[in-house]
Amino acid sequence: MKRPTSLSSLPAEQIESLVSVLDAVRSGAATTRPQVAHQTGLGRNVVTQRVAQLVSSGLLAEGMLGPSTGGRAPRELRFRAEAGVILVAELGATSIEVARSDLAGTLTHRRSEPADVTDGPDQVLNRVAELFQQIVEGLPADLDVWGIGLGLPGPVEFETGTPVSPPIMPGWDGYDVREFFSSRFDAPVWVDNDVNVMALGELRGGLAAGHRDVIFVKIGSGIGAGLISRGALHRGAQGCAGDIGHVAVGGSAIRCRCGQLGCLEAHAGGFALARDGYELGRSGASPLLAQAVAEGREVTAETVVRAAQRGDLAARELVIGSAHLVGESLARIVNFFNPSLILVGGGVASAGEFYLGEVRRSVLTRSLPLATHSLRIEQSPIADSAGLRGAAFMVVDELLSPAHLVASELVDTVA
Amino acid sequence: MKRPTSLSSLPAEQIESLVSVLDAVRSGAATTRPQVAHQTGLGRNVVTQRVAQLVSSGLLAEGMLGPSTGGRAPRELRFRAEAGVILVAELGATSIEVARSDLAGTLTHRRSEPADVTDGPDQVLNRVAELFQQIVEGLPADLDVWGIGLGLPGPVEFETGTPVSPPIMPGWDGYDVREFFSSRFDAPVWVDNDVNVMALGELRGGLAAGHRDVIFVKIGSGIGAGLISRGALHRGAQGCAGDIGHVAVGGSAIRCRCGQLGCLEAHAGGFALARDGYELGRSGASPLLAQAVAEGREVTAETVVRAAQRGDLAARELVIGSAHLVGESLARIVNFFNPSLILVGGGVASAGEFYLGEVRRSVLTRSLPLATHSLRIEQSPIADSAGLRGAAFMVVDELLSPAHLVASELVDTVA
Repeated sequence: MKRPTSLSSLPAEQIESLVSVLDAVRSGAATTRPQVAHQTGLGRNVVTQRVAQLVSSGLLAEGMLGPSTGGRAPRELRFRAEAGVILVAELGATSIEVARSDLAGTLTHRRSEPADVTDGPDQVLNRVAELFQQIVEGLPADLDVWGIGLGLPGPVEFETGTPVSPPIMPGWDGYDVREFFSSRFDAPVWVDNDVNVMALGELRGGLAAGHRDVIFVKIGSGIGAGLISRGALHRGAQGCAGDIGHVAVGGSAIRCRCGQLGCLEAHAGGFALARDGYELGRSGASPLLAQAVAEGREVTAETVVRAAQRGDLAARELVIGSAHLVGESLARIVNFFNPSLILVGGGVASAGEFYLGEVRRSVLTRSLPLATHSLRIEQSPIADSAGLRGAAFMVVDELLSPAHLVASELVDTVA
Repeated sequence: MKRPTSLSSLPAEQIESLVSVLDAVRSGAATTRPQVAHQTGLGRNVVTQRVAQLVSSGLLAEGMLGPSTGGRAPRELRFRAEAGVILVAELGATSIEVARSDLAGTLTHRRSEPADVTDGPDQVLNRVAELFQQIVEGLPADLDVWGIGLGLPGPVEFETGTPVSPPIMPGWDGYDVREFFSSRFDAPVWVDNDVNVMALGELRGGLAAGHRDVIFVKIGSGIGAGLISRGALHRGAQGCAGDIGHVAVGGSAIRCRCGQLGCLEAHAGGFALARDGYELGRSGASPLLAQAVAEGREVTAETVVRAAQRGDLAARELVIGSAHLVGESLARIVNFFNPSLILVGGGVASAGEFYLGEVRRSVLTRSLPLATHSLRIEQSPIADSAGLRGAAFMVVDELLSPAHLVASELVDTVA
């Protein structure tokens, strides 16, 4: 449907309770009016009014009769996730991925292709816009794009949606990504760091659901973390919180692609595995990687991980070394942040249980007992969709927030 | 006055806007009804009603005529901080300090004395209760104790107010501190880690006011940090977030009082300075400390800090060594947490500008440029009252929160 306008002319003081009611149903915490009243602490009359406003706006629908608790059975309420469309994209160092999402993070029309983020924002974002355009052209006439969400592989100032000195994205510093898309698609745009949107995806629809303090670690070609504090993203003052990849480990002299010496990511990231794996192949220390080098195939992090999975000892040692360093770095962070859950995702982390096992061992050996006695360390089961889903949740959470509803056309276009 | 009861029988849906109005005035963000309406987004009628309810409850008072913006000059509103009394206490490893606070963290009747936290909760808390009792006996008949707040030198599970495996507090694990005081003083009790309440004191009435992401570091006999994320405390899953004192630095074999090897606090805390300072005195490397040893005086961290301030080179080197190690540890944390402000407090940190200078140098050398380009590192100007004031704010924030107002006698005792 079109963006809702019938919430218009609601007095500002009704917006808070409207959003409370909507959130209770949207999160699945309540499915009937009495449950909404219980969940929100609002009176029954207020709940009845707000539900009526939300049904008439198209955001809620009434369904079947729910279970009776003595009197007349209450009608079930349902969040109409199909009411709007969100365009989402995740940019990596070497790829772009786009999808269409409903208002509950369900993805369709997913499409990914190689891209080089160092080509700069104009070229990369133009391609994203083309892919978005193809999705828009396939939309039924009664469906609007309500918003656009993007994850970028670098620090982003969330308030303005601009990249801030991103180390691996030359030409992107300060680029107005929001304006680029909002002018083309006439919809509000939110942009964040890729690991932050992945953490949000895990929080809203993954293993992190229900946790309040979470660290999501992505070990891909680089290494970064997204932090959840008190059930919401901790972005930090410049939006660069969670930067664990560029902290020096040991006394190494290996130069990182960021320019510094001895970064964790220069030792344990996918770039590092590819570099060291190639050497293992060239020297013959790893039979499987030697074969790849001999056949002229490129040795990527994936090549190394596959060789490790197939039992190649040298490759396995390399991959376990990565897990060990990541675990050591996480141990310090566990003492500092005291999370209840660490989720590990990304290509390197998908090596398998032996990778996760070494991370766990390394964290538990070095952290304080109090901080680890109920700590879980798990592999993300939805890692390959967490970013796109998180981008959708980021947009919907902002669109349906009190601040946005008060300020936006969602409430002020119709008297 | 007595705890307010005239907010009773307010419907739950009015409590949110009531608290919004109260917070706007209490924080100083608004001092007239129009300013409150602007600040909260509430309609003028709702603001007028809520202000009337708050004035009749005794929490707000009407004052002078404020500046006119054209029409009739609006009356100024004032939070009646003198309406209630909070009892606050801060327990250290070797001291207890208590005070009476008003609802705005203004301290009176302050009293501190030596105490040994290892004597266990019964003995230590009984003494705190005696000191509280002396304050209560001096209260005018029309003033009630509204709440009690305590800071403890170890991890605390905030929901229950119980210490959780505190490393330097034998006998305190799981002790019901809330029950101890609530049964004696018939008032609600909140308990938190000492560094968390200090961070809260800094946030609400110190240099941290207005910042959203802050690290407060206390370098006393031990070393710990309190974290502010998005303008509120990040306590972590077990309430032990901010534990930076028990992370290993370098490859040292020095045993910490917590039992582990090579902790930061075993190298850079006050205990460590006293130990190493005594050695400097015994060996004669430090003339001033040698004098103290020769005279049979105890060499404490304070002795070492004073010798450093008086120009004793060996003592100064020792103190700067502490600052260097603290700074190195903070550098990693800065990359991870991305604060806009680091506040340094505690006895060792009070050594002077040369201490802070070395912390700054050490952080800036090791952190990423993006995370430090607008980072401030300052000494807390209110360090000696931040804990007690923070304990008062902790209590008032909880007492005047929507959840507490809905559940408590503040609203349900009078029909």
